[in-house]
Amino acid sequence: MDPVKVGICGFGTVGSGTYAVLTRNAAEIAARVGAEIVVAEIGARRGCEDSDVGATAVNRDVFAVADNPEIDIVVELIGGTTTAKDLVLRAIENGKHVVTANKALIAEHGNEIFAVAAEKGVSVAFEAAVAGGIPIIKALREGLAGNRIQWLAGIINGTGNFILTEMRDKGRDFSDVLAEAQALGYAEADPTFDVEGIDAAHKLVILASLAFGIPLQFDKVYTEGISRIAPEDVTYAEELGYRIKHLGIARDTDNGIELRVHPTLIPVKRLIANVNGVMNAVLVQSDAVGPSLYYGAGAGSEPTASAVVADIIDVARTLGATPDARVPYLAFQQSALSAHPVLPIDEVETAFYLRMSAVDRPGVLSRVAQILSDEGISIEALIQKEPPEEANLVPMIILTNRTIEGKLSSAVAQIEGLESIVGEVTRIRVESLAG
Amino acid sequence: MDPVKVGICGFGTVGSGTYAVLTRNAAEIAARVGAEIVVAEIGARRGCEDSDVGATAVNRDVFAVADNPEIDIVVELIGGTTTAKDLVLRAIENGKHVVTANKALIAEHGNEIFAVAAEKGVSVAFEAAVAGGIPIIKALREGLAGNRIQWLAGIINGTGNFILTEMRDKGRDFSDVLAEAQALGYAEADPTFDVEGIDAAHKLVILASLAFGIPLQFDKVYTEGISRIAPEDVTYAEELGYRIKHLGIARDTDNGIELRVHPTLIPVKRLIANVNGVMNAVLVQSDAVGPSLYYGAGAGSEPTASAVVADIIDVARTLGATPDARVPYLAFQQSALSAHPVLPIDEVETAFYLRMSAVDRPGVLSRVAQILSDEGISIEALIQKEPPEEANLVPMIILTNRTIEGKLSSAVAQIEGLESIVGEVTRIRVESLAG
Repeated sequence: MDPVKVGICGFGTVGSGTYAVLTRNAAEIAARVGAEIVVAEIGARRGCEDSDVGATAVNRDVFAVADNPEIDIVVELIGGTTTAKDLVLRAIENGKHVVTANKALIAEHGNEIFAVAAEKGVSVAFEAAVAGGIPIIKALREGLAGNRIQWLAGIINGTGNFILTEMRDKGRDFSDVLAEAQALGYAEADPTFDVEGIDAAHKLVILASLAFGIPLQFDKVYTEGISRIAPEDVTYAEELGYRIKHLGIARDTDNGIELRVHPTLIPVKRLIANVNGVMNAVLVQSDAVGPSLYYGAGAGSEPTASAVVADIIDVARTLGATPDARVPYLAFQQSALSAHPVLPIDEVETAFYLRMSAVDRPGVLSRVAQILSDEGISIEALIQKEPPEEANLVPMIILTNRTIEGKLSSAVAQIEGLESIVGEVTRIRVESLAG
Repeated sequence: MDPVKVGICGFGTVGSGTYAVLTRNAAEIAARVGAEIVVAEIGARRGCEDSDVGATAVNRDVFAVADNPEIDIVVELIGGTTTAKDLVLRAIENGKHVVTANKALIAEHGNEIFAVAAEKGVSVAFEAAVAGGIPIIKALREGLAGNRIQWLAGIINGTGNFILTEMRDKGRDFSDVLAEAQALGYAEADPTFDVEGIDAAHKLVILASLAFGIPLQFDKVYTEGISRIAPEDVTYAEELGYRIKHLGIARDTDNGIELRVHPTLIPVKRLIANVNGVMNAVLVQSDAVGPSLYYGAGAGSEPTASAVVADIIDVARTLGATPDARVPYLAFQQSALSAHPVLPIDEVETAFYLRMSAVDRPGVLSRVAQILSDEGISIEALIQKEPPEEANLVPMIILTNRTIEGKLSSAVAQIEGLESIVGEVTRIRVESLAG
């Protein structure tokens, strides 16, 4: 086979990692593919002066790379959804195949991009967009292709998992750990994307489409961050045999598809409960395999580059083939995508962890239990502590059975209205998962 | 695309599971592939009378399925290495693509089979041969294709892992748990294949070839079973912060490739140490991603069928493409396979757990330490217990640093020669792994 010519656009963390991996492992990659993969041109508006890119041409105009007639595959590693989108569309328009690590671009504009790419008969590959170096997109699109996927749950933001791990291991405060994560470079100066779950929502939307054969619907994800998790919630969860993880969860139900990112109590004995620090993992429940789990580095220069390079290799292999021979963008044929609706969060069923401050007097628990019971919610476990000395408020922690969120919300509103309950009721969803 | 016609040969656990998955998920699979996958004929020398296979033709001569001109893909699920081999070769000879779940066949005869298949330009896919429903072959061949893989370590025999998990959780004896596993159907009447590591060795050989680009070399694997693990070893390991797992380990070193199956002490904090019961997991260390782990059911009807169906789908996609568009059998082009030798076990470097019975008198430890030190081996940790009442023998447990196995063997021979050491020294290899 002739050498395959790649243009890398964007030369930041992932771009330089991709160049490094393609260069360092060139011989091994050629031995796998049966052809050399050559970086023919780098497009970078800035940077790349100091990097050792040998004789590789650097073009300050990334669009020139998309127009370069020599290039087979344009690798978009700019990030964002403006220039990146224009670049990807230009490359497709020119009949080039595209590899991207851009989760926001795929989650928000993937439907449009894939439609154009299908018309032009080119590949758009995006393994690096979810969970960095973990080949989870390949697992969902190909490895589990014989299965009906029932649900998946992922730790898909390393920053959030680092914060929760530190909070648990060292009993620290959220804000404290966040500051450290920023100092370590794990968290951005503006941490909203990570800790409020937007980054995870981008990734979840992609995973859900591949799992269930639905179009990308970023605007339908319910998203809740971890900034309101208190150290005592972490402690009470452990006492009950649970660990708090920030999960992206997608589930196929008869009524619709659940798409939600939120802190979740999960049993300590689950393998995914033991995924710590910045590591990512995705747990998939499917009808033939049962639970399977995929674990690894979810971010970073070379882990992400690994996924980019795997995509380049896949695309390189089928350069001469018809589009039939390639895996569909969203796992299912474009014409076969399902219109199964996304469920509003009020209709989602989970169990709940509730923490409230009760005035230390008889009858409070029975009133709370009555309210829950009236909504059809029963109590699975309860922790009621002695009040701290000289205080009159008792922390009361309740684990409910599975219930529709709307009913829980109604019960919580009534509980918050009780004179003997002070302040807001903290609520965290609980999932038993599998594996 | 025209319907793709499959012939299933062998209708035992995996054959019937494959039929069930292909039938139950037919619509979803067609929506993925863009073509129907049809079971055109079943070949089964016996059985299949009671199963509901609808109008599907059943042929008592499996070779007739390989000769059926209608069939595109022959699925070999007979097992064993005699008829299965003849069948696979016949199918290839007839220009058909092959999917198999047969680890022994691939490990022992894969080199020959792939050579013939390459000549005929057909696929031979075998995802189901290793770790059942976990798409580990796809991860190694494709997902991690940009990486140089440094080592891998797998729990790749569910029976063995079930036994070790029960021994640890309940303090039970090996033979006790084995009997239960046989009663539960997890272990065969003749458990040798599972508990002595032969099954794991078959799988390890396949994984190592995919990871390092070497031919299959089943005769070179060092294999040690779990039948000699005593309950006290499990307990002492825990005391030292380790868990005992039966691992298949392959490592690429400058001197050669390590290929070994043996009980191994691994740190409790590793994710893979928490893979319990019959579940499988493979941990892969590679240069770009770092550690990644793949977990799921390693056996059973539908988990294995899931891998078979994923292979059928992959093969179906590239039916019309040239062999270039397909992933090479052993991940690397046949012409690029490496001649890097397999290291004899005496040259392998690991740390060691040693357990011995010492006469309760002064100076024994110093003599043992001297022997180790003379071989360049230092002691990392030590447990020396009080002798049980009225006994004169003290159990002494030593954790060494990493050393060449040959040196350790020489030291152990000298230690066993000491008058103050009674009986044999138990030794179990120790690996710190990653992740």
